Amino acid sequence: VKSVHNGIEYALIELISETYNIFKRGLGLSNDELHQIYKKWNEGLLESFLIEITEKIFLQPADDANGRLIDLIKDQAKQKGTGKWTSQDAMELQVPVPLIDMAVDMRDMSGYKEERSDAAKTLKGPDAKINQDKQGIISKMESALYFAMIAAYAQGMTLLRKASDEYKYNLDPEAIARIWRGGCIIRARLLEDIRQAFTRKADLPNLMVDQKFGGELNKRQDDVRTIIQLAVNAGIPVPGFMAALSYFDSYRSEWLPANLIQAQRDFFGSHTYERIDKEGVFHTEWGK
Amino acid sequence: VKSVHNGIEYALIELISETYNIFKRGLGLSNDELHQIYKKWNEGLLESFLIEITEKIFLQPADDANGRLIDLIKDQAKQKGTGKWTSQDAMELQVPVPLIDMAVDMRDMSGYKEERSDAAKTLKGPDAKINQDKQGIISKMESALYFAMIAAYAQGMTLLRKASDEYKYNLDPEAIARIWRGGCIIRARLLEDIRQAFTRKADLPNLMVDQKFGGELNKRQDDVRTIIQLAVNAGIPVPGFMAALSYFDSYRSEWLPANLIQAQRDFFGSHTYERIDKEGVFHTEWGK
Repeated sequence: VKSVHNGIEYALIELISETYNIFKRGLGLSNDELHQIYKKWNEGLLESFLIEITEKIFLQPADDANGRLIDLIKDQAKQKGTGKWTSQDAMELQVPVPLIDMAVDMRDMSGYKEERSDAAKTLKGPDAKINQDKQGIISKMESALYFAMIAAYAQGMTLLRKASDEYKYNLDPEAIARIWRGGCIIRARLLEDIRQAFTRKADLPNLMVDQKFGGELNKRQDDVRTIIQLAVNAGIPVPGFMAALSYFDSYRSEWLPANLIQAQRDFFGSHTYERIDKEGVFHTEWGK
Repeated sequence: VKSVHNGIEYALIELISETYNIFKRGLGLSNDELHQIYKKWNEGLLESFLIEITEKIFLQPADDANGRLIDLIKDQAKQKGTGKWTSQDAMELQVPVPLIDMAVDMRDMSGYKEERSDAAKTLKGPDAKINQDKQGIISKMESALYFAMIAAYAQGMTLLRKASDEYKYNLDPEAIARIWRGGCIIRARLLEDIRQAFTRKADLPNLMVDQKFGGELNKRQDDVRTIIQLAVNAGIPVPGFMAALSYFDSYRSEWLPANLIQAQRDFFGSHTYERIDKEGVFHTEWGK
């Protein structure tokens, strides 16, 4: 449970850092403006410990230099390994947690600071500027972050459910949401709604299909789509938001193109496939 | 080397399945049209074993039923675990291989067939239709797939380089590209260019900064951006293409928002941070 807590924490931190990237590089906002945004967010839907400390971070002065401390900190994220363990365990259990995976990947990517500086000289793309209505983007971003936070908790809670089934942990998701709400790094207003969702239905297969959260996702998806499109156009990486949206769009896909994957696997490796029109396991001599 | 080979294979298969999703659901193309597209692709830049078998798969009749076999295969992808091992090992070595991670995640996601069918009833988004110039999209897709294939090989080759350093394997990337070109599931015309890139510079840190591949990526990035935006609008998941673009956009980012991650980690856990203006390791009593 602690490992999955930290996996969710990695995902939320990655998402917040992506909003910072869009605000700083895309919109050119100052640290004071950033402080104001996260402060306001912490009074609404996104109220949480991580948003609260983010708000404060942008005010912190550099005691021994001019300006704010945040601008002197090296952009190279470290890790103790708990996010990585969560991703590795999830893969072992075949539970997709793409938002956590991307958070781990981006910490790793940040470590290649020198290579990135070199690559910036030869790999050229858009200049990161987003020249559109700032207030509109900030407002859509709040909604998009709420969407992506739901996806992050949904992935973590699903992993806990599967781990509980597999390892006979007999976990109570309602109790976990309640305990996390009480005091930990991922504590958030959202956790009370998560607790209630599991009170309504203890065996909820995925938070996304709870009536409240499903409605929120349906309603807010356009904001996520807009934010991703703006970032893609501007050349600003938003793998966390992308993973949240892909997770939503694939989970709501009754059909996925995995039939082609099975056909390929059977073609090159005789790995067999199942069919939709009859029971059994089949193999074909392809192209004969 | 075999494990990384299979990781790249997972990534390429995922990408091809995403093109199929866009063509089938987005553009409504028939199996005959799909056959023609992949056949043409296999005569150009994308020439490879996996494109060749894809081309043939769309022609395969269902011997015991009407129509083509591909439409009777269940969209639930299995795995032997080699992709997963590659992702897990890469995380251990702190080498980001997001395209391989997403490929593993999407195989896992495909397994949730029943949950997906249920979720499709409550999670509502765009209807997957792309009402735009078909030929234009097919042509951009070819270019986008080439871009993403380069990213997949770049991630795999970087993982091999790091593993070789860490475990003292003394691997020769030029020889690996040559051997893979000779006959394996990921054999592709592209591998000859990869071999040449490592002939030019044996210690190339990342394929993306090779002069040839860097130029191709710079030139084709607009096509990837367009394809992702179309898919995001249509509600079709393209996590593989997204991971390829994020990898490119983050690797070419001299600055990433990881300074905020370090500030947060130091705020809540006293994990310390480094600075850009002086050497050392620092801790701050935040918000005091």
